[in-house]
Amino acid sequence: MYERFWQQAGDKSTIVIPGWQSMSYFSDAGSLCWFLEPDFAQEIIRLHKIVGNAVTEDRHIVVGTGSTQLYQAVLYALSPQDAVEPLSVVSAAPYYSSYPLITDCLKSGLYKWAGDARSFNKEGPFIELVTSPNNPDGYARQSVVNKSGGILVHDLAYYWPQYTPIISAANHDIMLFTVSKSTGHAGMRIGWALVKDEEVAKKMVKFVELNTIGVSKDSQLRAAKVLQVVISSCQYPTSLGSLFDFSAHLMEERWSLLRAAVRQSGLFTLPEFSPGSCSFLNRSFAPQPAFAWLKCQELMEDCEGFLRSNNILTRSGKHFGVSPQYVRISMLDRDENFYIFVERLSTIHLRHSIQVDERGE
Amino acid sequence: MYERFWQQAGDKSTIVIPGWQSMSYFSDAGSLCWFLEPDFAQEIIRLHKIVGNAVTEDRHIVVGTGSTQLYQAVLYALSPQDAVEPLSVVSAAPYYSSYPLITDCLKSGLYKWAGDARSFNKEGPFIELVTSPNNPDGYARQSVVNKSGGILVHDLAYYWPQYTPIISAANHDIMLFTVSKSTGHAGMRIGWALVKDEEVAKKMVKFVELNTIGVSKDSQLRAAKVLQVVISSCQYPTSLGSLFDFSAHLMEERWSLLRAAVRQSGLFTLPEFSPGSCSFLNRSFAPQPAFAWLKCQELMEDCEGFLRSNNILTRSGKHFGVSPQYVRISMLDRDENFYIFVERLSTIHLRHSIQVDERGE
Repeated sequence: MYERFWQQAGDKSTIVIPGWQSMSYFSDAGSLCWFLEPDFAQEIIRLHKIVGNAVTEDRHIVVGTGSTQLYQAVLYALSPQDAVEPLSVVSAAPYYSSYPLITDCLKSGLYKWAGDARSFNKEGPFIELVTSPNNPDGYARQSVVNKSGGILVHDLAYYWPQYTPIISAANHDIMLFTVSKSTGHAGMRIGWALVKDEEVAKKMVKFVELNTIGVSKDSQLRAAKVLQVVISSCQYPTSLGSLFDFSAHLMEERWSLLRAAVRQSGLFTLPEFSPGSCSFLNRSFAPQPAFAWLKCQELMEDCEGFLRSNNILTRSGKHFGVSPQYVRISMLDRDENFYIFVERLSTIHLRHSIQVDERGE
Repeated sequence: MYERFWQQAGDKSTIVIPGWQSMSYFSDAGSLCWFLEPDFAQEIIRLHKIVGNAVTEDRHIVVGTGSTQLYQAVLYALSPQDAVEPLSVVSAAPYYSSYPLITDCLKSGLYKWAGDARSFNKEGPFIELVTSPNNPDGYARQSVVNKSGGILVHDLAYYWPQYTPIISAANHDIMLFTVSKSTGHAGMRIGWALVKDEEVAKKMVKFVELNTIGVSKDSQLRAAKVLQVVISSCQYPTSLGSLFDFSAHLMEERWSLLRAAVRQSGLFTLPEFSPGSCSFLNRSFAPQPAFAWLKCQELMEDCEGFLRSNNILTRSGKHFGVSPQYVRISMLDRDENFYIFVERLSTIHLRHSIQVDERGE
């Protein structure tokens, strides 16, 4: 979806790295996050300042191989090394389908996935993941566990003006971001964490050191360049506007096409969002999330299977801790794929009715 | 140490990546390792063929964020998910100091560090890590556990002609390599595994997917370029010779300086190696490892502390599973640092003798 913007940006966003550059493990040997490229750190701070989506003052920046690695770094940093039993990790359903898989893949004695935060009632300390806007359903979120002893981790991958109005600068203790969702560069595998507590930040750095001995310098340098272009697109917009104007406009268009297709089909429902006033885009609009969280009619038990039989690939709600009546669909695919998807979705009603009729005979 | 070669290589090794390139998570969606850049895979095969250090036929290539990530991918892939107790992981001491730390950092229920392979006598399956040439001591190695049920993992990070004669093409089931030790580009965080068994390779891919959703494309593209230049330096050597001529020559020089300093000081010993005939460099030479494994005189209990008091930073043998009479010192630092190190080492005898005299009064 973002490709066109970067094509138009042209040479300004091109990175050139000679063979003799950035050979060492170290980026800034004396700093807390010794593998963080200083140029990248600087652009992160500038970007948050101009977008106004997160407070960077009084925070340590930890870079990761995508926010996925940082998620694991957070779990490692927050879990006591000498605990008798693993720390519980919860998130309100529907939650990001990878959270339980990543948390439990090594059967760690430090932490353990404990499911839906809404039904969590175990005694003792725990970690609550707050993804806002939420993946998969796009709603803004706050902590839901109503008891003490919880440590909150805010995954703000989608808190950018193309997806949701920026209401205020997020000001939490641990916040995760990623270039893949802000600029579209998923292949870079670059994420960053803004962390208030120095000890937590240090332990996260330790994890990244143990896990991958730092983070690709090449991608950090490229990310710095790309963020520079994003910032400059906000300060001196071209014909496409800033990256956020461009992508917010695209998302709006796509959501309106999707809602039209859903209406035409008559078999599905989508989340409804209230508009909010965005301090960055200076206008009011409703969230237009990176995923469509589609609910199929009551009579369809397996929405993923039903859509697959109609040549639409989705991810079943069961992976997100809810019923298979729901599916998640990406809204960030290339134009051609997105148009084929809405076209197919809009015509399902007809074909489905035929199937029902045939069965009815 | 490698910088000068890459400076001389000039523009040939420069990578240029436009902002709109390599944005997706996928590199080769249909292939087993869907995040492996095909160009990089091709250069890996060409490089092994020209150097003759590993068999690539009938092997799957899995790319990782350094070989450190691949080590964890191997542990994940080889451990049964439903085992009653964690799989034992062993290696003959002295072993790479990060192995126990990485293995146990999350207190995994799948695998567990079980120490020195030579004293391992537990029943049941296990993993034996064979690092050859060995980090820290530089010796060529083979499996040492004399019982069945073991799965061997060969870490061949240092099996390149600048460190050791290439005797034959390694032909093991699981072999790990990294650009940081072959070309000097540690900051790229790129390693690769050559894996015979398809199921093991698939599970390794799954781990990298869970851990970091793939590997930086930017660094893979840069690694492809850099390997291309290495290969071409072998085919059409310049005034510096091939990368391997250049770095083998440097290592020879450094080891002869180090041995002279050790002789002059009289307080230390170094491993002794027998020469071997290198099929790549077409000459016979003794190993000249990436690390010096220094043993201090009997009377010094804490060699690391003693050297620190002489302004030489090393890593104590205790981290490698042996006595603190040993220390590991990198032989790959920049010229100026290496010269300062050997200069300081060579003059320790004198100062130490004075200390002894003073105490003797």
